[in-house]
Amino acid sequence: MIDTGDRSLHEECGVLAVYGVPEAAQLAYYGLHSLQHRGQQGCGIVTADSSGEMHLHKGRGLVSEVFDGASLAALPGSMAIGHVRYPTTQVGGPENIQPFVFKHSAGNFALAHNGNIINSEELRTSLERHGSLFQTTSDSELFAHLIKKDRSEDHRIYNIMEALNMVEGAFSMVIMTAGRIYACRDKYGFHPLSIGRLGGGYAVASETCAFDAIGAEFLRDVEPGEVVTIDSRGLRSMHYSAFKRHDMCVMEYIYFARPDSDIEGCNVHVFRKKTGKLLYQEHPVEADMVVGVPDSSLSAAMGYAEAAGLPYEMGLLKSKYVGRTFIQPTQTLRDKGVRMKLSPVRSVVSGKRIILIDDSIVRGTTSRRIVAMLREAGATEVHVCIASPKYAFPCYYGVDTGTYDELIGAGHSVEQIRAFIGADSLYFLSKEALFSASGRSELCTACFTGCYPTDLYAYRRDRDQFAGPGEPEEPTDPSQI
Amino acid sequence: MIDTGDRSLHEECGVLAVYGVPEAAQLAYYGLHSLQHRGQQGCGIVTADSSGEMHLHKGRGLVSEVFDGASLAALPGSMAIGHVRYPTTQVGGPENIQPFVFKHSAGNFALAHNGNIINSEELRTSLERHGSLFQTTSDSELFAHLIKKDRSEDHRIYNIMEALNMVEGAFSMVIMTAGRIYACRDKYGFHPLSIGRLGGGYAVASETCAFDAIGAEFLRDVEPGEVVTIDSRGLRSMHYSAFKRHDMCVMEYIYFARPDSDIEGCNVHVFRKKTGKLLYQEHPVEADMVVGVPDSSLSAAMGYAEAAGLPYEMGLLKSKYVGRTFIQPTQTLRDKGVRMKLSPVRSVVSGKRIILIDDSIVRGTTSRRIVAMLREAGATEVHVCIASPKYAFPCYYGVDTGTYDELIGAGHSVEQIRAFIGADSLYFLSKEALFSASGRSELCTACFTGCYPTDLYAYRRDRDQFAGPGEPEEPTDPSQI
Amino acid sequence: MIDTGDRSLHEECGVLAVYGVPEAAQLAYYGLHSLQHRGQQGCGIVTADSSGEMHLHKGRGLVSEVFDGASLAALPGSMAIGHVRYPTTQVGGPENIQPFVFKHSAGNFALAHNGNIINSEELRTSLERHGSLFQTTSDSELFAHLIKKDRSEDHRIYNIMEALNMVEGAFSMVIMTAGRIYACRDKYGFHPLSIGRLGGGYAVASETCAFDAIGAEFLRDVEPGEVVTIDSRGLRSMHYSAFKRHDMCVMEYIYFARPDSDIEGCNVHVFRKKTGKLLYQEHPVEADMVVGVPDSSLSAAMGYAEAAGLPYEMGLLKSKYVGRTFIQPTQTLRDKGVRMKLSPVRSVVSGKRIILIDDSIVRGTTSRRIVAMLREAGATEVHVCIASPKYAFPCYYGVDTGTYDELIGAGHSVEQIRAFIGADSLYFLSKEALFSASGRSELCTACFTGCYPTDLYAYRRDRDQFAGPGEPEEPTDPSQI
Amino acid sequence: MIDTGDRSLHEECGVLAVYGVPEAAQLAYYGLHSLQHRGQQGCGIVTADSSGEMHLHKGRGLVSEVFDGASLAALPGSMAIGHVRYPTTQVGGPENIQPFVFKHSAGNFALAHNGNIINSEELRTSLERHGSLFQTTSDSELFAHLIKKDRSEDHRIYNIMEALNMVEGAFSMVIMTAGRIYACRDKYGFHPLSIGRLGGGYAVASETCAFDAIGAEFLRDVEPGEVVTIDSRGLRSMHYSAFKRHDMCVMEYIYFARPDSDIEGCNVHVFRKKTGKLLYQEHPVEADMVVGVPDSSLSAAMGYAEAAGLPYEMGLLKSKYVGRTFIQPTQTLRDKGVRMKLSPVRSVVSGKRIILIDDSIVRGTTSRRIVAMLREAGATEVHVCIASPKYAFPCYYGVDTGTYDELIGAGHSVEQIRAFIGADSLYFLSKEALFSASGRSELCTACFTGCYPTDLYAYRRDRDQFAGPGEPEEPTDPSQI
Repeated sequence: MIDTGDRSLHEECGVLAVYGVPEAAQLAYYGLHSLQHRGQQGCGIVTADSSGEMHLHKGRGLVSEVFDGASLAALPGSMAIGHVRYPTTQVGGPENIQPFVFKHSAGNFALAHNGNIINSEELRTSLERHGSLFQTTSDSELFAHLIKKDRSEDHRIYNIMEALNMVEGAFSMVIMTAGRIYACRDKYGFHPLSIGRLGGGYAVASETCAFDAIGAEFLRDVEPGEVVTIDSRGLRSMHYSAFKRHDMCVMEYIYFARPDSDIEGCNVHVFRKKTGKLLYQEHPVEADMVVGVPDSSLSAAMGYAEAAGLPYEMGLLKSKYVGRTFIQPTQTLRDKGVRMKLSPVRSVVSGKRIILIDDSIVRGTTSRRIVAMLREAGATEVHVCIASPKYAFPCYYGVDTGTYDELIGAGHSVEQIRAFIGADSLYFLSKEALFSASGRSELCTACFTGCYPTDLYAYRRDRDQFAGPGEPEEPTDPSQI
Repeated sequence: MIDTGDRSLHEECGVLAVYGVPEAAQLAYYGLHSLQHRGQQGCGIVTADSSGEMHLHKGRGLVSEVFDGASLAALPGSMAIGHVRYPTTQVGGPENIQPFVFKHSAGNFALAHNGNIINSEELRTSLERHGSLFQTTSDSELFAHLIKKDRSEDHRIYNIMEALNMVEGAFSMVIMTAGRIYACRDKYGFHPLSIGRLGGGYAVASETCAFDAIGAEFLRDVEPGEVVTIDSRGLRSMHYSAFKRHDMCVMEYIYFARPDSDIEGCNVHVFRKKTGKLLYQEHPVEADMVVGVPDSSLSAAMGYAEAAGLPYEMGLLKSKYVGRTFIQPTQTLRDKGVRMKLSPVRSVVSGKRIILIDDSIVRGTTSRRIVAMLREAGATEVHVCIASPKYAFPCYYGVDTGTYDELIGAGHSVEQIRAFIGADSLYFLSKEALFSASGRSELCTACFTGCYPTDLYAYRRDRDQFAGPGEPEEPTDPSQI
Repeated sequence: MIDTGDRSLHEECGVLAVYGVPEAAQLAYYGLHSLQHRGQQGCGIVTADSSGEMHLHKGRGLVSEVFDGASLAALPGSMAIGHVRYPTTQVGGPENIQPFVFKHSAGNFALAHNGNIINSEELRTSLERHGSLFQTTSDSELFAHLIKKDRSEDHRIYNIMEALNMVEGAFSMVIMTAGRIYACRDKYGFHPLSIGRLGGGYAVASETCAFDAIGAEFLRDVEPGEVVTIDSRGLRSMHYSAFKRHDMCVMEYIYFARPDSDIEGCNVHVFRKKTGKLLYQEHPVEADMVVGVPDSSLSAAMGYAEAAGLPYEMGLLKSKYVGRTFIQPTQTLRDKGVRMKLSPVRSVVSGKRIILIDDSIVRGTTSRRIVAMLREAGATEVHVCIASPKYAFPCYYGVDTGTYDELIGAGHSVEQIRAFIGADSLYFLSKEALFSASGRSELCTACFTGCYPTDLYAYRRDRDQFAGPGEPEEPTDPSQI
Repeated sequence: MIDTGDRSLHEECGVLAVYGVPEAAQLAYYGLHSLQHRGQQGCGIVTADSSGEMHLHKGRGLVSEVFDGASLAALPGSMAIGHVRYPTTQVGGPENIQPFVFKHSAGNFALAHNGNIINSEELRTSLERHGSLFQTTSDSELFAHLIKKDRSEDHRIYNIMEALNMVEGAFSMVIMTAGRIYACRDKYGFHPLSIGRLGGGYAVASETCAFDAIGAEFLRDVEPGEVVTIDSRGLRSMHYSAFKRHDMCVMEYIYFARPDSDIEGCNVHVFRKKTGKLLYQEHPVEADMVVGVPDSSLSAAMGYAEAAGLPYEMGLLKSKYVGRTFIQPTQTLRDKGVRMKLSPVRSVVSGKRIILIDDSIVRGTTSRRIVAMLREAGATEVHVCIASPKYAFPCYYGVDTGTYDELIGAGHSVEQIRAFIGADSLYFLSKEALFSASGRSELCTACFTGCYPTDLYAYRRDRDQFAGPGEPEEPTDPSQI
C-alpha cells in the first residue's frame, strides 16, 4: 500500500521519552523525527528542567515544521517526552495534539500515549459524575484524571498502577513528573514500547528505529502490564496486572513499523521478506517480474522475487515530494491522466506479466487504481499477491480503518475483490504464515479473524448492529479470510 | 549516493512547457512537481493568456511550497513554461530563479533553460559594450539579450537561431511569446528535452516522467541543434547548426534522471540495472548480500544481486521526512550517534558480508560515513562497488561538482580511495559498460575521461592552472579511470 | 503614556459575546478587533452551531493575524464568544489564551473572562484535593471547575451563581452553552461589561466601542453581582450577591478604554478632557503650548489647552507602523539616536516652553525619555502635568503594574520623581478631580490610595513583606498621593 | 482624509540612503520605517560591502514584515540605499519593487527612485530599438539603461547627468556604486530629498523625519537639477540643468508628508495648522465644535479651532490595528453597520453642530460616509471645511489619483459636491492660502489649477480626449477651484 493521502490504514501515534541527557529536547526532536511515519498530523515535546518546571511546544504538522531552532531552544532540561499524531480530523481537533501538561499543586506532570481505550466512554461519564472536567477527547486526558482522582498523593506509582487497572484496551504510555519518567504498556501488549540506554541516561520509544536515530542502544522491551520507572536511581519495574498476553498487533509488522525497527526481537524488514517468500510458497504465480507497491510492500516483493527466482523490478515509482501542502488535482485533471504520487515505470512493465505485491487491501480503491495504471502502461497481466490475509474486521485498538462497511474484505469474496480491482488473479497470505514469519505464538490478528482479545464495550453495541448472522465465527480456510 | 544535503553532485534544473490546453498553469504545476528531483531551491511558472499578457509566479522552495491554490489561480492562459532550480547559493541569489519575463514593445516574452554556457563571460562583456544591462547572472537573461540585440524583429525565429549559434555549451531551453513556444537544445545534445502530445496541445519537458504525470504521450526528443516551434499550426522544426553530436551526459542515466524516465529511448531504471549486472561481471565479489544506497543506486543493486544470485536486501533506510526546514544536528550530537537521513537496518546487516552498490563517488565523505555506519551496525565486510568509472574531472556543462580539488577521484588512486572510505575492497565500472548499458555509441563521459566535447574558454584558463603535467591524457586501464 | 512595548500598565483582556445573529463569528471578529487595545498577545472565538457543537479558533497575535477567511468560515453558528489577551509572558503561556471549551456529557460549554481572582490559589488547592485537574493557570479554567464541581446539573444557572459566590476579585465573564449565553460581572463592578441589541439578537462587550463597530445599539450595563442570561426567550437577570459596590477601576477611564467608549454612562474622551481642565485649574502653568503624549493623553491635553487658552500642539508624533514583528534597535543604535515609536516634532517644540500632559507615571522611565527627547529637540522648558494622582500601590484586580518596587510613585516624593524624569516642574491631579470628572461617587482608586475594596488573600501575605511602616495609610494631601 | 484602504490619493514611494556608517542596513531599516507612510506595498534595501559586492533583500509588505533579524544580518556593509513602495496593483507587479541591482563588468550598481517620468514611453521605445531589454515597467530600470547606454564608462557622473537630462518629469533618486552614493532630484523640484549628517557619514531621505529616526542631523536639501555625490571625499555637487524651478508638490504639505518633517524649510504640521487658521479666516462657520478627520487633517483642525475659539474635539476615532491582513466586511455586514477603520465618538458629537475639517476631497465617497456616520451618531449639523482648494485635475508626477473621471471636483460644482457628500455646507481653502501658509512663491498646484509645469507627452494625448472645452483655463474665484 502506498502511504500518503488515500491510504486507508492509520495508526494512532508514536511516543518517545529521554531521561538524563543534556539537550533532551534536541534528542526528542531527532527521535520523534524517526517516528514520523507513525503520525504526521501534529507533534509535541515537553521537557522538565532542573527546577521541575515543564516546557511545552506542540502544533500541527511534521516534526520539521512544528519545531525550529528557537522553539527547541525554549525547551530546557535533561528530560523530555514527545509524541507524533496521525492525520485525521475525525477523532478530534488540534486540542488533542499530545503531550498534555497538567498543573497540580502536588507537582505538575505530563503525559503522552498511543493506542485506544475501549472503555473510555464509561470512565469519562463516571469521572464527570464526580466533578471532573474535560477539555479534549484524548485518552491521555482521561488517564491523567484517573491518576489524580481523589488520591492520597503519597506514592504516585500506586496511583498510576490503579489507573492502569481501570482502563481496558491498547496503549503505550509515557508519563513525566519533575524527576521521573514512567513507561507503561497495556496488559495485552498490543503496541510496541522499548527501552534503550542513551549516554548516561535512558530512552523510551514506540520503535527501536528511534534508538538508532539518537545513538541509543536497545536494552529491552517494556513488558505487557508493566510500569517501568526511570529516575536518578535507574530503572525499576512494577507489574500492575497478573493477566498478561503478548497480542502484538500484526499490522505493526505488516504495515506500520519502519523496516529498520525490531519489534519484540523480530526485525520488520526480515518479517516482511519472509512473508514474501511464504506468499510465493502458498501461491506460486507464473509471470515475468515481481513489482512491489512502494514503500511498505517492497520487502515482501524482494522476498517473493527471491523465492520465485524472478526479477525484482522497480515497476512503480513513488514521488518523494508529495507533502501536506501539495495541491490535489481536480477530478477533471485526474480523468485526463494527471497523477502525482505513484507512477508506473512504463519501459519496465510494458509487455510484461506482473506479479504485484501489496501488504494489504483495505478499501480496494487504491489497488484498483494501481492495477489500471499498470495495464495502461502496457502490462499484459497483473496478478495481485497480498502479503497478509483478507482484512475483514474493524480494529478497535488504535488502527483507524474506517467503518465495517468500508472494508472491502468484510462483505466480499476473494473473487469479488479480484473483479473489483481488475486483477488477473488475486491471492492472500494465510494467517499461519504470519506466525511463521514472526516466529511467535501470539499475535493480535483480529482484523483478519474477528477474534478480539478484549471485550468491546460501547463498540460491541455498535458492532452488534452491523454484524450479520454468524459473524464473526472463525473461518475455516485461513487464506480465504 | 544519497541525494539530500551533503550529496556532491547537482544538476542545474529542469524545464517544462505546455501549449494549447485549458488550465495550463495547473498542468505545469504537476509537471514541474515530477521534475522536482532536478532542483529544489526554487521554481516558477509563467503563463500567457489569450491577450498575450504574461503572468509570473516564482519563489524559493519546492513546487508544493511556492505555489498554492491562489497563486495558481492567478496564472490564467492555455500556455505556460516552468522551471525548477537546483539548490546552491554559490551561483547566484534568488533573483536567478527562472523563468524570466522580458517586457518589449515588440511583444513580451519568457524564457527558461537548464545547463551551462561556456562562453557566457565573453558574450556578456561584448553585450555590455553595446549597452546591455544585466540584473542577474543567469544565462537565461544572456539568451534574452542575444535574441533581442539589434534585431529587425521581422522573424523572431531567425533571431533565436542566430542567438543559439553564438553560445557554446550545454542547454535545453523553452521560450514563450504571446502565441508560440520554442523548444531548443544545444548542438551537442548534452541534456534531454522531449516533446509529448497533451490533449489537443503539446508538452515539452526535461524528462519523460513529466509526461506520465500530466497525462501526455511521448512524441519524440528535440534533436541536438534543433529549434521546435509550437503554435496554432502545430509543430515545425528548424536546425540552427550543421554541427551535431549526441553527447548525452552520462550522469543523467547514472544519477540525475528519475528511474521512470526514458532518455533518448533508453529507460533510466533499465540502464542502471544493466550497469549493476555488468558491474558484477567485471567485479564479482563474494559476500552474503547486496545493499544499494537509496534512492539512486537501488536499480544497480538489484541488477548486481540478480546477476550474482545473491539476496538483494534493504540494508540502508532513507528517511522520507527530511525537508528543507529540518534542523541539522550539531557536531556534538553527531558524535553521539544522532543521524537522520540514512539508517542501517541493524538486524539485516549484522554479522553479514555486504556488497554496497553506489552510483558514484565524488568527494568520498558520504561513502566513508556509510561504510562506517554499516560496520558499526555489525557488518563483517563491506565491499564497495561503484556503478560508474572513477569521477576525476570537473563538469562544465551544468553539473555542479565543486572544484577539481574536491574530487577525490582526481588526485587519488583506487587504493587510496578505498583506504579513505574504509572499505574492504573498492571497484569501479568500466567506461565501456556505460556504452553497453545504454546501447549508445555517443555519450559525454568527460567527468571520467577529461575529454570535453567543447572548447572551455574561461574555464580552460582556470583549469590550465590546476591540471598537472600530462593531464588529461587518456588513461589506459578504463576501470581505473 | 505611549502604549506599545515599554508601557508599564497592562490590563488583562477584553471579552465579547454575540447571540442570535447570522455569521456570529464574523461579528465577533469585528467586535474583538475594536477591543484590540485591551490585549494584543492572543485572541480567540468560539461559536456554537445549531446542533450545539462548539467550534474554536484561537492563537497568538492580533485579531487580524490570528484569523483569516478560512478560519472564520470554519466557525459556523449564530452564537459566539470571544476574547483578546494582553501581552505578557509572565502570567502563563499560550495555553492560557481564551476562550476555553469544556467537553461534558451534560453539554459542552465555553468560557472567557477578564480581570483577576484574588482567592484563586485557595480555590485551586481545594478543588485539587477533590480530584480536579488543571491544564492552565487561567482563572477561566478555575471558573469552569467551580461551575461543574459535583453539581446536580439540573439548573446550570444555579451552578454558575454558586460558583460566582465562591470567587473574590475582579472579573467580567461570558459563558456559552449550546443555546445560551451568560454575562456575569463581579460584585464590586471593577471592570465594565455592557449589553447591546444586535439585529434580532444581542451583543455583550467589555466596551461600548465594540457595539459601534458591529452596528449594535447600547441597551444597558451588566450590574455588579448580576448574571444576565441570553437565550431564545430574550434577556433574564439574576443577582447572585446581596453585597454590591460600584468600584469601577478608575484606570479604565484614565488609560485603558478607547475614547469613544462610554463606561457606565460616562464617555472616556469627555472624562479625560475634563481631567485636563481640572488639571489646569489645580496647576496652572505658564508656558507657550500644551503637548499630549499620544495616544491616551491627547484628550486631557486638549482639555488643559482649552482651559488655559494655550495652543494645543502636535509636539510628539507616534508611529503607526510599530507592530509585533518590528526589530528593536540595539542599545548601541539607541545611543546613537535611533528611535522608532515616538518622535518630537522639532519645528514645533524648538525654542518653546512646553506643558507636557501624560495620563500617569508608573516607572518613570518613559517620561524621562520623553522629557529628554523634547529638550534635545530644542524645548526650553518642559513642565509635566499628570492627569491622575501619584500611582503608588500595585493593583490586584487585573492591571499588571509589575511589583511594588517598580512603581516610582511608591517610594519617592513628587520632587524626587521630578528630578528623575528631568522635568522643570511636575504636578499630579487630585483624587477628587477624578470623581468630579466622572460624575461618580464610587470608583476604585486603590492604585492611588492603597485602599483596596477586597481582602487580598495570598497577595496580602506578599504585600505585608514589602509594605513599610505606616503604609498604606490614607494620605492627607490628595495631590501628593 | 483617512489613509488606509479606501483613500484615493497615493504617492509613489520614498527613498533613503546611508553612507559611511557601521551596520548601514540597520539604519536603513529604521529610516525606511519612518518613511513607511509613503508606501506600504513593498520595500527593499541594498547594501554594498567593502569589496563592492551588493546585497539585496526586498519583498511585499511593510518594512517590519519584509525584514527580520536574519535578513538584515545578511546585508553587510557601510553603505545602503532603500525604498518603500506605495500600494497599488495597477502599475506593475512585485517585480517592480525597488531598489534594483544591475550587474555590470564595469561595476555593479543599484538604484531607487520615487516620482513619475513623463516621457518614459518614448525613451523605452528608443532604447529598445538599440537593443535594450526590460524586465519591469519601473522607471528605475529605465534610468539604469539610460545611464549605461553606450557610455565610455570613464566618468560615471557624466553618464548620470546625461541620463538625467533625457528624462522629463518628477523624480528623486539615489544611486549606489561600489564606493559612492549619488542623490539626484528633478529640475522642477517636485518631490523633497534632503541630506543629513549621520555619525561620521551621511544620510539621504525623502523626508527629514527619517533623520530624526536614525539620529542624523539635517544638513540641506538636494536642489532641483542637482546631483550630489557622496563618497570618501565627502559631498560634491554638480548641476545637470540650467533650467530650475521650485515647483514642490503642494500635496506633500497637505497630505503626504509626516507632520514632523520639514519640507524645504517649512514644517508640515505648522503648514497644516496655518491652513486651518486661514480656512477659518476665509470661511468662519458657526458651530459647537471642530472635528478633524484623522490622521492627516488633525493639524488643520487644531488651527481652525484655535482661530475660531471653538473646542477642538475628538469626534472621530481611527483604529490603530487595521493592517494588510484585515478581513474587509462584506457589503451585507457594512449595511448592518459593521465598520472598522473610523468610528464616531457618539457622546462627543451627539446633539452638536460640527465643523468637520478634511485635507482634501478626491472622490467624495469617503467624505459622504463620514458625514453620514456623524449624523447617525447624533450630530445636528455637519459643515465640511476642506483645507485645500477643489481637487480637479489629475496628477502626472507620481500622485495616483485615478482617472479624471474619478475626481468629483473635475466635473462638479461646490454645491453639487456638497449635495453629494450630504453636508450642511462645504467650503474650500483658496490657492493663495497655500502659498501664504508655506511662505513660498513657487509650488506645483496643478491638481487645483490644471497648470502643469511640464509638457505631458503621452499623457497629453490621453488628456486631450477627456478634457472638455475651455478646460483647463484658470478659474477666477480661487475658493471655487
